[in-house]
Amino acid sequence: MSYPLWDQLKALKENKWVDLTHTFDSKSPHFSALEEAYIDTISTVPEDGFFVQRWSVATQYGTHIDAPIHFVEHKRYLHELDLKELVLPLIVLDYSKEVAENPDFRLTRQDLLEWEDQHGRIEPDSFVAFRSDWSKRWPNVEQFENKDAEGNPHAPGWALDALQFLLEERGVKSVGHETFDTDASVDVAKHGDLIGERYVLGQDTFQIELLTNLDQLPERGAVIYTISPKPADAPGFPVRAFAITPEKQ
Amino acid sequence: MSYPLWDQLKALKENKWVDLTHTFDSKSPHFSALEEAYIDTISTVPEDGFFVQRWSVATQYGTHIDAPIHFVEHKRYLHELDLKELVLPLIVLDYSKEVAENPDFRLTRQDLLEWEDQHGRIEPDSFVAFRSDWSKRWPNVEQFENKDAEGNPHAPGWALDALQFLLEERGVKSVGHETFDTDASVDVAKHGDLIGERYVLGQDTFQIELLTNLDQLPERGAVIYTISPKPADAPGFPVRAFAITPEKQ
Repeated sequence: MSYPLWDQLKALKENKWVDLTHTFDSKSPHFSALEEAYIDTISTVPEDGFFVQRWSVATQYGTHIDAPIHFVEHKRYLHELDLKELVLPLIVLDYSKEVAENPDFRLTRQDLLEWEDQHGRIEPDSFVAFRSDWSKRWPNVEQFENKDAEGNPHAPGWALDALQFLLEERGVKSVGHETFDTDASVDVAKHGDLIGERYVLGQDTFQIELLTNLDQLPERGAVIYTISPKPADAPGFPVRAFAITPEKQ
Repeated sequence: MSYPLWDQLKALKENKWVDLTHTFDSKSPHFSALEEAYIDTISTVPEDGFFVQRWSVATQYGTHIDAPIHFVEHKRYLHELDLKELVLPLIVLDYSKEVAENPDFRLTRQDLLEWEDQHGRIEPDSFVAFRSDWSKRWPNVEQFENKDAEGNPHAPGWALDALQFLLEERGVKSVGHETFDTDASVDVAKHGDLIGERYVLGQDTFQIELLTNLDQLPERGAVIYTISPKPADAPGFPVRAFAITPEKQ
């Protein structure tokens, strides 16, 4: 007997697998409105025969998935997402140079149009990741928050018109980034709200935050898995995002 | 340009994807030595603009992965497992009938030899799941624990000689089951320890507990994914286990 899925798995394992997930602990950078994770040791091998911990963690902690209900009422909870939605063709947009020059960089519709001129049209039903190399600041909280003398953060993000272009004009399924937020800090300050994040989740789709290792991926050709446990009625959770990719060109 | 991994994903999505993970909450059945999960609401959309919870959960809660260090010192933590270890060819051993007749059923080396006589030799580097249909008792705690009048639990499990056969004689990578424990309740009572679980994790490999929906899978031909978030230095965590499978024969 032959088992096609087993053969396919063997072939898949000949590709490179890239972990897009930060290891997290109580000291990890996190969105400022949330508390750190707490870890208690419940039992140990020497004392009890087995080692068990209790982790107390915000649903938006470490590399995590945001379910639609995180920002928009009556949209889907995490456990209502379908498995097949969570495995997608991956497109990586590299704006690491621009961000190195300007941490307040906003990725706009115009940038995407210019990207398409160079790299071709963005495919529907894909996952589009914004590479900023912001993940290289992990686990340094100060560098990650990047506050100025007045305490205002400066981190890059998606402009609303770019997200609308991707989801409505290109039929993209989901987006992800390396920062805490979808929106650039300058846009959050201007609007007093995360208008880009509220828009994405309002489309009843999910997004992934605090990705890492995007610099190990080609602009096209990899597949992303964004898999989380299944707490009931939750707005998100720490996720395991990883990619299977041909070696980077 | 063509992207082979994208084409392969398209083909994968033409198969059936089966979620092997229970949705969990504070009322879910769990190993009796552990506390229930606690869920706090940190912010809500009407009050704060976004919905965030804090989940406080034992590392061995809901459908979960046990890292080697859960039972054996100096073995690997969860974050040290390699992604490629966590996606494996799946073999499902159906002993649901035997368990329906006898909840104290122990799956032994002799049973496996008889299974191989009927179904062929168990392949190396595979994940072997013990289907007992115990998952159908979820989320009823009383039925899941199945205690007698004296308060002693009665649940099926792997006999030590079966696990030794699978890992040493057949070179299997990992095992999983639908119950709280690797060992049958009668063996735990007899030995005063989980000798099967201690053996498996002592091989520096992982296992999956509290699987569900194994009845939707063929005995061979599916691929199992056992993917968890990446807390630092943890002995396990709630996992998302799922299978991609040809339609069941």
